[in-house]
Amino acid sequence: MTSATSRPEAAPDGTAPSTSLLTDMYELTMLQASLRAGTAERPSVFELFGRRLPSSRRFGVVAGTGRLLDAIEAFTFSPAQIDFLHRTGVVDDTTLDYLRGYRFTGTVRGYAEGECYFAGSPLLTVEGTFAEACILETVALSIYNYDCAVASAASRMTIAAHGRPCVDFGARRAHEQAAVAAARAAVVGGFVGTSCLEAGMRYGIPTVGTSAHSFTLLHDSEEEAFAAQVASLGPGTTILVDTYDISRGVERAVAAARAAGGELGAVRLDSGDLVAEAFKVRAQLDSLGATTTRITVTNDLDEHAIAALGAAPVDSYGVGTKLVTGSGRPTAALVYKLVERADAQGVMQEVAKFSEGGKSTVGGRKWAGRVADASGSAAEELVVSARSQAEALEALAQAGARPLQVDLITEGRIIEEHRGPGALAAAAERHRVSRAELPYPAWRLSDGEPAVPTRHLDLDGRSAQRR
Amino acid sequence: MTSATSRPEAAPDGTAPSTSLLTDMYELTMLQASLRAGTAERPSVFELFGRRLPSSRRFGVVAGTGRLLDAIEAFTFSPAQIDFLHRTGVVDDTTLDYLRGYRFTGTVRGYAEGECYFAGSPLLTVEGTFAEACILETVALSIYNYDCAVASAASRMTIAAHGRPCVDFGARRAHEQAAVAAARAAVVGGFVGTSCLEAGMRYGIPTVGTSAHSFTLLHDSEEEAFAAQVASLGPGTTILVDTYDISRGVERAVAAARAAGGELGAVRLDSGDLVAEAFKVRAQLDSLGATTTRITVTNDLDEHAIAALGAAPVDSYGVGTKLVTGSGRPTAALVYKLVERADAQGVMQEVAKFSEGGKSTVGGRKWAGRVADASGSAAEELVVSARSQAEALEALAQAGARPLQVDLITEGRIIEEHRGPGALAAAAERHRVSRAELPYPAWRLSDGEPAVPTRHLDLDGRSAQRR
Repeated sequence: MTSATSRPEAAPDGTAPSTSLLTDMYELTMLQASLRAGTAERPSVFELFGRRLPSSRRFGVVAGTGRLLDAIEAFTFSPAQIDFLHRTGVVDDTTLDYLRGYRFTGTVRGYAEGECYFAGSPLLTVEGTFAEACILETVALSIYNYDCAVASAASRMTIAAHGRPCVDFGARRAHEQAAVAAARAAVVGGFVGTSCLEAGMRYGIPTVGTSAHSFTLLHDSEEEAFAAQVASLGPGTTILVDTYDISRGVERAVAAARAAGGELGAVRLDSGDLVAEAFKVRAQLDSLGATTTRITVTNDLDEHAIAALGAAPVDSYGVGTKLVTGSGRPTAALVYKLVERADAQGVMQEVAKFSEGGKSTVGGRKWAGRVADASGSAAEELVVSARSQAEALEALAQAGARPLQVDLITEGRIIEEHRGPGALAAAAERHRVSRAELPYPAWRLSDGEPAVPTRHLDLDGRSAQRR
Repeated sequence: MTSATSRPEAAPDGTAPSTSLLTDMYELTMLQASLRAGTAERPSVFELFGRRLPSSRRFGVVAGTGRLLDAIEAFTFSPAQIDFLHRTGVVDDTTLDYLRGYRFTGTVRGYAEGECYFAGSPLLTVEGTFAEACILETVALSIYNYDCAVASAASRMTIAAHGRPCVDFGARRAHEQAAVAAARAAVVGGFVGTSCLEAGMRYGIPTVGTSAHSFTLLHDSEEEAFAAQVASLGPGTTILVDTYDISRGVERAVAAARAAGGELGAVRLDSGDLVAEAFKVRAQLDSLGATTTRITVTNDLDEHAIAALGAAPVDSYGVGTKLVTGSGRPTAALVYKLVERADAQGVMQEVAKFSEGGKSTVGGRKWAGRVADASGSAAEELVVSARSQAEALEALAQAGARPLQVDLITEGRIIEEHRGPGALAAAAERHRVSRAELPYPAWRLSDGEPAVPTRHLDLDGRSAQRR
């Protein structure tokens, strides 16, 4: 995963297509209204966070960071896009002039990709003018809501797999571009490969594959199909043995490999009662002397099915639908909220929604750290409101908290270590370490409370006012 | 919806990026093995269908057809992609030579976009060599599984809305490109607009928008925010009134519009008990004399929430998460199966998976029609296996069935009416008509049987053999 070679959806000329219209219309009409009101340039701070974890999630997994940095870089308005906005009257000429020159020049800090997160964790803190930070909302949420959902599901699956490798076979069950992002997010959550070639090319993820029932059916007999596969791909290939009779399929697959002078790499089971079949097939393989031939299983696996296969003689899991759809939680329910901005006098003020209807938020910029207990286990997500970064870091240090936010973009300049070659493998390793730090309840698949509670410490004495 | 102006994700030079690596690796390794075995060029027929509808779905909605035709056109292998496959050793040189020259030259027939479908409906029938038809599997399934899931959810929502307009506000809750496809699929299911600008540009879908809490919070008071919005967007704008106190927000919003010389277009409610709030706000608006001011509601709506709002004085629905994630069914569970291919003697043979483990399929190419009862209501999905199209169409005619399959690609040539300008509006209208034809149970939101049962009529006497 260190040889990523292409930009997302790069055009033939190598440029990434603009991401700027992957945006809700109201971002641009709000921009227009604020330009006219003279408030567009007010220094502002937005935070991206989840009010709570989706139900049944004991922790969240940050993913999409590298993709977001690419998307912000590509967030510019092409002449064709400006023409569309003009022709359809979405915004006025003043706003079009602003958009023609748009580049994000602000600062983004946030949790590094792969880090675990909890309710209220400030995953991203975006500072800039209202105008420049506001219009990133939709694309930032799209990327984080999907990628975090998939990575969080993937992490539960790799917990359930107890070290057996999990690979992504989900491309066909998600939007074709979402599938590529899912393959990437799955790696953050501990997956080791993908069937999706585009994910291999774009992110350097190892690609894997077996064969389909159609390949067996193409040939005049199962023997001919298996011989053809082994002749082309070698005896180390993985043969799908459940097109007709599984037991005969196993026998024929082993024989095909041996006829080519080797021992079969693996068989794949894709239907039926996988626990029972795995035991039967393992016994048959062993009785045939094919003790090195592995068993991989697929077929609507999720973390619970994987856990149920824990005692079965299975060597790896291919996960499709439930991975790319977030295993019942297809979006991470993250939001992007204005928490501070300058007032008419240029003084920064905390702001927050207050209505009785719910969805209230805590105003003001926040700093976060993870506090460990005496055993070294994470015990608390400490989220601090303070007047300054120094004061906040001091409070985190006093609590013995590991600071969680890192620089991602500084005054428009992307910190390269968080994207591109190496960043994905680093995120996967970061997640491994962060997850290992969590207390035991984090590993439970059942519904329940977050593994780590969030505590909000308000040091600054300011608070948002109702207006 | 008649002015689509850009190809999907078109590069600055107007070319669509290649879709060929949005593909599972095994498609290409199966291709390699079949090339070596001499079976790659066997004439073959694949079908794309669902074994059953997802639970709680009374009918499915075909969507993604126009996108698939674009994707097949763009399914070619660029030098950079060939280099990736070569460098990573995914396939051998013979296969790379085949891929360099790849263009789909076969024939695709299927249900027109917008048509309703049921268990076993052959949504697509792809004829070509095994090689050329096999490698389209992943991208075809990705597009149909996502787009049909969203369109099917959208149709349930527009049923529940009983004629009140529904608009897509879901961009932030799905992968950023999936969101664009979702906006399009939602239109097939009866939605009338989207917040997503890219969907507006790519597909000509009307874009709509209101404003966010951040816009209110940006300003020093709610009055200033509303005045700024009206000054820029006119009194006909939609104002979000629940940032602070809803009742005061409504009063201020109406006053802001009147100060600008007009009546407020609409208010948006985004939190709290929407049924109760809608009644309260309607009464307040009426008491203020703002009887033409409309109420739009958002906040985690799904078809059930929309149905519950049916008696409330609400004018339109903005739907986010539940739309773009298929309202609990994020994938349509469609599969792509080889059903016929030539044998070594060149004779077409039906083929099918047979193992006891489940997932068995019916071999042989199928023709489909919808049979109506005496009242004109759809009563049966008739799926016919026959030796020839003539024989099948004859059987459908005898049963009084409306034939459901149309030509989409003929010997590699795309039938243009099924994509591009006009195709989306036609699909939406086709769905309206097709849905209106369904019997009453189709309109039920509760779990239950498909609204129309599927009957398989086997005329050809051939049947797939176990091998």
